[in-house]
Amino acid sequence: MRKKRPSLFITFEGIDGCGKSTQVKLFARTLERQGIRPVVTREPGGTKLGEGVRRLVLPRASTGMDPRMEVLLYFAARAQNVAEVILPALKRGRIVLCDRFTDASLAYQGYGRGIELGFIRELHRVACQGLKPDLTLVVDIDPRTSVRRARKRNRGEGPDEGRFEQEKTGFHRRVRQGYLELIRAEPRRLKLIPGEQSIGAIHQAIVARSRPLLVRRGWKGVK
Amino acid sequence: MRKKRPSLFITFEGIDGCGKSTQVKLFARTLERQGIRPVVTREPGGTKLGEGVRRLVLPRASTGMDPRMEVLLYFAARAQNVAEVILPALKRGRIVLCDRFTDASLAYQGYGRGIELGFIRELHRVACQGLKPDLTLVVDIDPRTSVRRARKRNRGEGPDEGRFEQEKTGFHRRVRQGYLELIRAEPRRLKLIPGEQSIGAIHQAIVARSRPLLVRRGWKGVK
Repeated sequence: MRKKRPSLFITFEGIDGCGKSTQVKLFARTLERQGIRPVVTREPGGTKLGEGVRRLVLPRASTGMDPRMEVLLYFAARAQNVAEVILPALKRGRIVLCDRFTDASLAYQGYGRGIELGFIRELHRVACQGLKPDLTLVVDIDPRTSVRRARKRNRGEGPDEGRFEQEKTGFHRRVRQGYLELIRAEPRRLKLIPGEQSIGAIHQAIVARSRPLLVRRGWKGVK
Repeated sequence: MRKKRPSLFITFEGIDGCGKSTQVKLFARTLERQGIRPVVTREPGGTKLGEGVRRLVLPRASTGMDPRMEVLLYFAARAQNVAEVILPALKRGRIVLCDRFTDASLAYQGYGRGIELGFIRELHRVACQGLKPDLTLVVDIDPRTSVRRARKRNRGEGPDEGRFEQEKTGFHRRVRQGYLELIRAEPRRLKLIPGEQSIGAIHQAIVARSRPLLVRRGWKGVK
Protein backbone atom coordinates (compact mmCIF):
# COMPACT_ATOMS: atom_id res chain seq x y z
CA MET A 1 0.00 0.00 0.00
CA ARG A 2 1.26 3.45 -0.91
CA LYS A 3 1.50 5.99 1.80
CA LYS A 4 -0.98 8.79 1.20
CA ARG A 5 0.85 11.99 0.30
CA PRO A 6 -0.06 15.28 1.89
CA SER A 7 -2.34 17.45 -0.21
CA LEU A 8 -1.22 20.69 -1.82
CA PHE A 9 -3.20 23.70 -2.97
CA ILE A 10 -1.41 25.80 -5.61
CA THR A 11 -3.02 28.87 -7.21
CA PHE A 12 -2.04 30.81 -10.34
CA GLU A 13 -2.56 34.56 -10.49
CA GLY A 14 -1.80 37.58 -12.62
CA ILE A 15 -3.52 40.23 -14.71
CA ASP A 16 -5.48 39.28 -17.84
CA GLY A 17 -3.36 38.09 -20.73
CA CYS A 18 -0.39 37.17 -18.50
CA GLY A 19 -0.56 33.60 -19.74
CA LYS A 20 -1.40 31.89 -16.45
CA SER A 21 -4.11 29.61 -17.92
CA THR A 22 -1.56 28.19 -20.37
CA GLN A 23 0.84 27.77 -17.46
CA VAL A 24 -1.72 25.88 -15.37
CA LYS A 25 -2.07 23.36 -18.24
CA LEU A 26 1.68 23.02 -18.73
CA PHE A 27 2.30 22.55 -15.02
CA ALA A 28 -0.45 19.92 -14.81
CA ARG A 29 1.14 18.07 -17.75
CA THR A 30 4.54 18.14 -16.08
CA LEU A 31 3.07 16.71 -12.89
CA GLU A 32 1.25 14.03 -14.90
CA ARG A 33 4.49 12.98 -16.56
CA GLN A 34 5.77 12.31 -13.04
CA GLY A 35 2.76 10.17 -12.24
CA ILE A 36 0.91 12.82 -10.24
CA ARG A 37 -2.68 13.46 -11.29
CA PRO A 38 -3.53 16.98 -10.12
CA VAL A 39 -7.08 18.29 -9.84
CA VAL A 40 -7.30 21.35 -12.09
CA THR A 41 -9.98 23.98 -11.59
CA ARG A 42 -10.62 27.62 -12.43
CA GLU A 43 -12.42 30.70 -11.20
CA PRO A 44 -14.99 31.88 -11.67
CA GLY A 45 -16.31 28.43 -12.46
CA GLY A 46 -14.97 25.02 -11.59
CA THR A 47 -18.45 23.65 -10.88
CA LYS A 48 -21.68 23.56 -12.87
CA LEU A 49 -23.14 26.32 -10.68
CA GLY A 50 -19.92 28.29 -10.77
CA GLU A 51 -19.80 28.19 -14.57
CA GLY A 52 -23.27 29.75 -14.49
CA VAL A 53 -21.76 32.64 -12.53
CA ARG A 54 -18.94 32.85 -15.08
CA ARG A 55 -21.47 33.32 -17.88
CA LEU A 56 -22.95 36.17 -15.83
CA VAL A 57 -19.80 37.97 -14.79
CA LEU A 58 -17.46 37.91 -17.79
CA PRO A 59 -19.39 38.92 -20.95
CA ARG A 60 -19.23 42.46 -22.28
CA ALA A 61 -23.04 42.54 -21.93
CA SER A 62 -22.53 42.73 -18.15
CA THR A 63 -20.91 46.16 -18.37
CA GLY A 64 -22.52 48.37 -15.72
CA MET A 65 -22.23 45.71 -13.05
CA ASP A 66 -21.81 47.29 -9.63
CA PRO A 67 -18.39 46.37 -8.13
CA ARG A 68 -20.18 45.09 -5.04
CA MET A 69 -22.18 42.66 -7.16
CA GLU A 70 -19.01 41.65 -8.94
CA VAL A 71 -17.06 40.70 -5.81
CA LEU A 72 -20.05 38.83 -4.38
CA LEU A 73 -20.49 36.82 -7.59
CA TYR A 74 -16.83 35.81 -7.57
CA PHE A 75 -17.08 34.62 -3.98
CA ALA A 76 -20.38 32.83 -4.70
CA ALA A 77 -18.65 30.76 -7.39
CA ARG A 78 -15.63 30.31 -5.13
CA ALA A 79 -17.72 29.08 -2.18
CA GLN A 80 -19.20 26.34 -4.38
CA ASN A 81 -15.82 25.42 -5.86
CA VAL A 82 -14.24 25.15 -2.40
CA ALA A 83 -17.09 23.07 -0.97
CA GLU A 84 -17.67 20.82 -3.98
CA VAL A 85 -14.24 20.42 -5.60
CA ILE A 86 -11.23 21.83 -3.76
CA LEU A 87 -11.75 20.73 -0.13
CA PRO A 88 -12.87 17.18 -1.06
CA ALA A 89 -9.83 16.79 -3.34
CA LEU A 90 -7.45 18.05 -0.65
CA LYS A 91 -9.05 15.65 1.82
CA ARG A 92 -8.20 12.80 -0.57
CA GLY A 93 -4.55 13.95 -0.52
CA ARG A 94 -4.56 15.39 -4.05
CA ILE A 95 -2.63 18.32 -5.52
CA VAL A 96 -5.11 20.99 -6.58
CA LEU A 97 -4.17 23.64 -9.17
CA CYS A 98 -6.53 26.61 -9.33
CA ASP A 99 -6.57 29.31 -12.02
CA ARG A 100 -7.28 32.36 -9.79
CA PHE A 101 -8.47 32.40 -6.17
CA THR A 102 -9.04 34.98 -3.39
CA ASP A 103 -5.89 36.94 -4.28
CA ALA A 104 -7.59 37.80 -7.59
CA SER A 105 -10.51 39.38 -5.70
CA LEU A 106 -8.11 41.37 -3.52
CA ALA A 107 -6.22 42.57 -6.60
CA TYR A 108 -9.16 43.17 -8.97
CA GLN A 109 -12.08 44.19 -6.78
CA GLY A 110 -9.99 45.52 -3.89
CA TYR A 111 -7.03 47.36 -5.42
CA GLY A 112 -8.66 47.68 -8.85
CA ARG A 113 -12.17 48.82 -7.92
CA GLY A 114 -11.82 50.08 -4.37
CA ILE A 115 -13.88 47.49 -2.44
CA GLU A 116 -12.64 47.41 1.20
CA LEU A 117 -9.87 44.82 1.61
CA GLY A 118 -11.19 43.93 5.08
CA PHE A 119 -14.58 43.08 3.60
CA ILE A 120 -12.97 40.86 0.96
CA ARG A 121 -11.01 39.02 3.68
CA GLU A 122 -14.25 38.49 5.60
CA LEU A 123 -15.86 37.08 2.43
CA HIS A 124 -12.88 34.76 2.11
CA ARG A 125 -13.13 33.61 5.73
CA VAL A 126 -16.71 32.42 5.32
CA ALA A 127 -16.91 31.52 1.61
CA CYS A 128 -13.62 29.58 1.54
CA GLN A 129 -13.97 28.10 5.01
CA GLY A 130 -10.54 29.45 5.93
CA LEU A 131 -8.73 27.61 3.12
CA LYS A 132 -5.41 29.20 2.09
CA PRO A 133 -3.21 28.23 -0.86
CA ASP A 134 0.10 26.59 0.03
CA LEU A 135 1.71 28.40 -2.89
CA THR A 136 0.56 31.19 -5.21
CA LEU A 137 2.39 31.85 -8.46
CA VAL A 138 1.87 35.38 -9.75
CA VAL A 139 2.75 35.70 -13.43
CA ASP A 140 3.72 39.34 -13.77
CA ILE A 141 3.53 41.34 -17.00
CA ASP A 142 3.28 44.98 -18.02
CA PRO A 143 -0.34 46.20 -18.10
CA ARG A 144 0.15 47.34 -21.70
CA THR A 145 1.11 43.81 -22.70
CA SER A 146 -1.98 42.60 -20.86
CA VAL A 147 -4.39 44.81 -22.75
CA ARG A 148 -2.77 44.02 -26.12
CA ARG A 149 -2.78 40.22 -25.61
CA ALA A 150 -6.26 40.05 -24.14
CA ARG A 151 -7.78 42.07 -27.01
CA LYS A 152 -6.12 39.81 -29.51
CA ARG A 153 -7.50 36.76 -27.75
CA ASN A 154 -11.04 38.12 -27.63
CA ARG A 155 -11.12 38.72 -31.35
CA GLY A 156 -10.81 34.95 -31.64
CA GLU A 157 -13.37 32.18 -31.22
CA GLY A 158 -15.02 31.03 -28.02
CA PRO A 159 -17.39 32.60 -25.49
CA ASP A 160 -17.38 36.34 -24.93
CA GLU A 161 -15.27 36.90 -21.82
CA GLY A 162 -14.22 40.39 -22.75
CA ARG A 163 -15.55 42.63 -19.99
CA PHE A 164 -12.26 42.95 -18.12
CA GLU A 165 -10.31 43.34 -21.35
CA GLN A 166 -12.36 46.47 -22.07
CA GLU A 167 -11.00 48.13 -18.96
CA LYS A 168 -8.48 50.89 -19.39
CA THR A 169 -4.77 50.35 -18.79
CA GLY A 170 -5.07 52.35 -15.52
CA PHE A 171 -7.31 49.64 -14.08
CA HIS A 172 -4.86 46.87 -14.98
CA ARG A 173 -2.06 48.97 -13.52
CA ARG A 174 -3.86 49.16 -10.15
CA VAL A 175 -4.54 45.42 -10.26
CA ARG A 176 -0.89 44.69 -10.93
CA GLN A 177 0.15 47.00 -8.09
CA GLY A 178 -2.27 45.05 -5.91
CA TYR A 179 -0.59 41.77 -6.76
CA LEU A 180 2.83 43.26 -6.04
CA GLU A 181 1.62 44.45 -2.62
CA LEU A 182 0.17 41.03 -1.84
CA ILE A 183 3.56 39.48 -2.69
CA ARG A 184 5.30 41.97 -0.38
CA ALA A 185 2.89 41.14 2.45
CA GLU A 186 3.20 37.35 2.14
CA PRO A 187 6.49 36.60 0.37
CA ARG A 188 6.60 33.01 1.60
CA ARG A 189 3.30 32.09 -0.03
CA LEU A 190 3.21 34.33 -3.12
CA LYS A 191 6.03 34.10 -5.69
CA LEU A 192 6.54 36.49 -8.55
CA ILE A 193 7.12 34.83 -11.93
CA PRO A 194 8.36 37.22 -14.64
CA GLY A 195 5.88 36.85 -17.49
CA GLU A 196 7.56 38.82 -20.27
CA GLN A 197 9.48 35.81 -21.57
CA SER A 198 8.75 32.68 -23.60
CA ILE A 199 6.05 30.24 -22.49
CA GLY A 200 8.72 27.61 -21.90
CA ALA A 201 10.84 29.95 -19.77
CA ILE A 202 7.84 30.91 -17.64
CA HIS A 203 7.06 27.24 -17.19
CA GLN A 204 10.60 26.52 -16.07
CA ALA A 205 10.39 29.35 -13.53
CA ILE A 206 7.13 27.93 -12.18
CA VAL A 207 8.59 24.43 -11.86
CA ALA A 208 11.67 25.83 -10.10
CA ARG A 209 9.52 27.86 -7.69
CA SER A 210 7.26 24.94 -6.76
CA ARG A 211 9.87 22.19 -6.54
CA PRO A 212 11.06 23.00 -2.98
CA LEU A 213 7.49 22.83 -1.68
CA LEU A 214 6.74 19.60 -3.56
CA VAL A 215 9.91 18.04 -2.19
CA ARG A 216 9.21 19.22 1.36
CA ARG A 217 5.79 17.61 1.16
CA GLY A 218 7.19 14.30 -0.02
CA TRP A 219 6.25 14.45 -3.71
CA LYS A 220 9.85 14.18 -4.86
CA GLY A 221 10.26 10.54 -5.67
CA VAL A 222 7.10 10.12 -7.71
CA LYS A 223 8.00 8.92 -11.21
CA MET B 1 -44.62 73.23 -8.62
CA ARG B 2 -45.38 70.34 -6.28
CA LYS B 3 -43.26 69.95 -3.21
CA LYS B 4 -41.15 66.83 -3.46
CA ARG B 5 -42.34 64.24 -0.98
CA PRO B 6 -39.89 62.27 1.14
CA SER B 7 -39.04 58.87 -0.23
CA LEU B 8 -40.12 55.63 1.42
CA PHE B 9 -38.69 52.14 1.23
CA ILE B 10 -41.17 49.39 2.10
CA THR B 11 -40.30 45.69 1.94
CA PHE B 12 -42.54 42.61 1.94
CA GLU B 13 -41.40 39.44 3.62
CA GLY B 14 -42.61 36.00 4.66
CA ILE B 15 -42.04 32.33 3.92
CA ASP B 16 -42.78 30.88 0.46
CA GLY B 17 -46.42 30.70 -0.42
CA CYS B 18 -47.43 33.36 2.13
CA GLY B 19 -48.93 35.46 -0.65
CA LYS B 20 -46.62 38.47 -0.36
CA SER B 21 -46.03 38.85 -4.12
CA THR B 22 -49.79 39.19 -4.64
CA GLN B 23 -49.87 41.70 -1.79
CA VAL B 24 -47.09 43.80 -3.33
CA LYS B 25 -49.18 44.10 -6.51
CA LEU B 26 -52.38 44.96 -4.61
CA PHE B 27 -50.62 47.56 -2.48
CA ALA B 28 -49.03 49.13 -5.56
CA ARG B 29 -52.46 49.34 -7.18
CA THR B 30 -53.95 50.99 -4.10
CA LEU B 31 -51.18 53.58 -4.10
CA GLU B 32 -51.70 54.18 -7.83
CA ARG B 33 -55.39 54.83 -7.26
CA GLN B 34 -54.27 57.61 -4.92
CA GLY B 35 -52.03 59.07 -7.58
CA ILE B 36 -48.80 57.66 -6.19
CA ARG B 37 -46.66 55.75 -8.66
CA PRO B 38 -44.47 53.41 -6.62
CA VAL B 39 -41.35 51.73 -7.96
CA VAL B 40 -41.90 47.99 -7.60
CA THR B 41 -38.99 45.56 -7.54
CA ARG B 42 -38.21 42.05 -6.37
CA GLU B 43 -35.41 39.86 -5.12
CA PRO B 44 -33.53 38.07 -6.33
CA GLY B 45 -33.84 40.09 -9.51
CA GLY B 46 -35.06 43.59 -10.10
CA THR B 47 -32.34 44.30 -12.66
CA LYS B 48 -31.23 42.51 -15.83
CA LEU B 49 -28.13 41.21 -14.03
CA GLY B 50 -30.14 40.32 -10.93
CA GLU B 51 -32.63 38.30 -12.97
CA GLY B 52 -29.63 36.32 -14.25
CA VAL B 53 -28.88 35.46 -10.63
CA ARG B 54 -32.53 34.49 -10.11
CA ARG B 55 -32.30 31.96 -12.97
CA LEU B 56 -29.26 30.51 -11.20
CA VAL B 57 -30.53 30.37 -7.64
CA LEU B 58 -34.15 29.28 -7.83
CA PRO B 59 -34.47 26.28 -10.19
CA ARG B 60 -34.64 22.76 -8.85
CA ALA B 61 -31.57 22.00 -11.00
CA SER B 62 -29.54 24.08 -8.55
CA THR B 63 -30.08 21.59 -5.74
CA GLY B 64 -26.73 20.93 -4.06
CA MET B 65 -25.86 24.62 -3.93
CA ASP B 66 -23.67 25.37 -0.93
CA PRO B 67 -25.48 27.70 1.52
CA ARG B 68 -22.50 30.06 1.37
CA MET B 69 -22.89 30.36 -2.40
CA GLU B 70 -26.60 30.90 -1.92
CA VAL B 71 -26.29 33.84 0.47
CA LEU B 72 -23.60 35.44 -1.71
CA LEU B 73 -25.75 35.16 -4.83
CA TYR B 74 -28.68 36.82 -3.08
CA PHE B 75 -26.51 39.71 -1.96
CA ALA B 76 -24.93 39.97 -5.42
CA ALA B 77 -28.37 40.54 -6.94
CA ARG B 78 -29.28 42.85 -4.07
CA ALA B 79 -26.17 45.00 -4.49
CA GLN B 80 -27.07 45.60 -8.13
CA ASN B 81 -30.72 46.28 -7.32
CA VAL B 82 -29.79 48.79 -4.60
CA ALA B 83 -27.25 50.60 -6.78
CA GLU B 84 -29.22 50.58 -10.03
CA VAL B 85 -32.88 50.77 -8.96
CA ILE B 86 -33.64 51.38 -5.28
CA LEU B 87 -31.21 54.15 -4.28
CA PRO B 88 -31.77 56.22 -7.46
CA ALA B 89 -35.57 55.95 -6.99
CA LEU B 90 -35.35 56.98 -3.34
CA LYS B 91 -33.16 59.91 -4.34
CA ARG B 92 -35.93 61.04 -6.68
CA GLY B 93 -38.39 60.96 -3.74
CA ARG B 94 -40.25 57.85 -4.85
CA ILE B 95 -41.94 55.14 -2.80
CA VAL B 96 -40.15 51.84 -3.43
CA LEU B 97 -41.86 48.50 -2.77
CA CYS B 98 -39.55 45.52 -2.69
CA ASP B 99 -40.58 41.86 -2.65
CA ARG B 100 -37.95 40.51 -0.18
CA PHE B 101 -34.78 42.21 1.05
CA THR B 102 -32.02 41.58 3.62
CA ASP B 103 -34.47 40.23 6.23
CA ALA B 104 -35.09 37.31 3.84
CA SER B 105 -31.38 36.46 3.90
CA LEU B 106 -31.33 36.63 7.70
CA ALA B 107 -34.40 34.38 7.91
CA TYR B 108 -33.56 31.90 5.10
CA GLN B 109 -29.79 31.65 5.02
CA GLY B 110 -29.23 32.68 8.64
CA TYR B 111 -31.97 31.03 10.71
CA GLY B 112 -32.84 28.48 8.00
CA ARG B 113 -29.38 27.28 6.92
CA GLY B 114 -27.12 28.35 9.76
CA ILE B 115 -24.97 31.02 8.08
CA GLU B 116 -23.62 33.41 10.78
CA LEU B 117 -26.01 36.33 11.28
CA GLY B 118 -23.05 38.68 11.85
CA PHE B 119 -21.66 37.76 8.44
CA ILE B 120 -25.02 38.43 6.78
CA ARG B 121 -25.19 41.85 8.46
CA GLU B 122 -21.70 42.59 7.15
CA LEU B 123 -22.82 41.60 3.65
CA HIS B 124 -25.76 43.95 4.06
CA ARG B 125 -23.56 46.82 5.20
CA VAL B 126 -21.43 46.73 2.07
CA ALA B 127 -23.83 45.35 -0.56
CA CYS B 128 -26.76 47.60 0.41
CA GLN B 129 -24.64 50.66 1.23
CA GLY B 130 -26.32 50.85 4.65
CA LEU B 131 -29.85 51.17 3.23
CA LYS B 132 -32.59 50.09 5.68
CA PRO B 133 -36.30 49.70 4.89
CA ASP B 134 -38.58 52.26 6.55
CA LEU B 135 -41.19 49.55 6.97
CA THR B 136 -41.16 45.78 6.57
CA LEU B 137 -44.42 43.85 6.33
CA VAL B 138 -44.03 40.19 7.28
CA VAL B 139 -46.93 38.07 6.02
CA ASP B 140 -47.03 35.21 8.48
CA ILE B 141 -48.46 31.76 7.74
CA ASP B 142 -48.08 28.24 9.08
CA PRO B 143 -45.16 26.40 7.42
CA ARG B 144 -47.52 23.57 6.44
CA THR B 145 -49.68 26.05 4.53
CA SER B 146 -46.51 27.34 2.90
CA VAL B 147 -45.39 23.97 1.60
CA ARG B 148 -48.90 23.09 0.35
CA ARG B 149 -49.43 26.37 -1.51
CA ALA B 150 -45.97 26.55 -3.00
CA ARG B 151 -46.17 23.00 -4.37
CA LYS B 152 -49.48 23.77 -5.96
CA ARG B 153 -48.02 26.89 -7.55
CA ASN B 154 -45.00 25.09 -8.97
CA ARG B 155 -47.14 22.51 -10.71
CA GLY B 156 -48.44 25.43 -12.77
CA GLU B 157 -46.92 27.31 -15.69
CA GLY B 158 -43.94 29.63 -15.65
CA PRO B 159 -40.24 29.23 -14.92
CA ASP B 160 -39.04 26.57 -12.53
CA GLU B 161 -38.52 28.32 -9.21
CA GLY B 162 -39.10 25.26 -7.10
CA ARG B 163 -35.87 24.71 -5.17
CA PHE B 164 -37.06 26.25 -1.92
CA GLU B 165 -40.45 24.57 -2.21
CA GLN B 166 -38.67 21.21 -2.14
CA GLU B 167 -37.35 21.95 1.33
CA LYS B 168 -38.86 20.06 4.23
CA THR B 169 -41.35 21.68 6.59
CA GLY B 170 -38.63 21.86 9.28
CA PHE B 171 -36.68 24.31 7.14
CA HIS B 172 -39.70 26.57 6.64
CA ARG B 173 -40.38 26.35 10.36
CA ARG B 174 -36.89 27.67 11.15
CA VAL B 175 -37.30 30.44 8.59
CA ARG B 176 -40.61 31.49 10.12
CA GLN B 177 -39.04 31.46 13.59
CA GLY B 178 -36.33 33.69 12.16
CA TYR B 179 -38.86 36.21 10.91
CA LEU B 180 -40.61 36.21 14.30
CA GLU B 181 -37.30 36.91 16.05
CA LEU B 182 -36.51 39.73 13.64
CA ILE B 183 -39.92 41.27 14.45
CA ARG B 184 -39.20 40.96 18.19
CA ALA B 185 -35.81 42.65 17.74
CA GLU B 186 -37.11 45.57 15.65
CA PRO B 187 -40.84 45.94 16.35
CA ARG B 188 -40.99 49.50 15.06
CA ARG B 189 -39.75 48.57 11.60
CA LEU B 190 -41.11 45.04 11.13
CA LYS B 191 -44.86 44.43 11.37
CA LEU B 192 -46.50 41.03 11.49
CA ILE B 193 -49.42 40.60 9.09
CA PRO B 194 -51.50 37.47 9.76
CA GLY B 195 -51.54 35.60 6.44
CA GLU B 196 -54.08 32.85 7.10
CA GLN B 197 -57.01 34.96 5.90
CA SER B 198 -58.46 36.13 2.60
CA ILE B 199 -56.32 38.09 0.14
CA GLY B 200 -58.56 41.13 0.68
CA ALA B 201 -58.26 40.94 4.45
CA ILE B 202 -54.45 40.68 4.27
CA HIS B 203 -54.44 43.68 1.96
CA GLN B 204 -56.54 45.70 4.40
CA ALA B 205 -54.16 44.82 7.23
CA ILE B 206 -51.21 45.96 5.12
CA VAL B 207 -52.89 49.26 4.24
CA ALA B 208 -53.75 49.83 7.92
CA ARG B 209 -50.19 49.07 9.00
CA SER B 210 -48.59 51.40 6.45
CA ARG B 211 -51.02 54.33 6.67
CA PRO B 212 -49.47 55.93 9.80
CA LEU B 213 -46.04 55.99 8.17
CA LEU B 214 -47.39 57.34 4.87
CA VAL B 215 -49.26 60.07 6.72
CA ARG B 216 -46.24 60.96 8.86
CA ARG B 217 -44.17 61.33 5.72
CA GLY B 218 -46.71 63.63 4.11
CA TRP B 219 -48.28 61.23 1.59
CA LYS B 220 -51.78 61.66 3.10
CA GLY B 221 -53.42 64.22 0.86
CA VAL B 222 -52.39 62.65 -2.43
CA LYS B 223 -55.51 61.99 -4.47
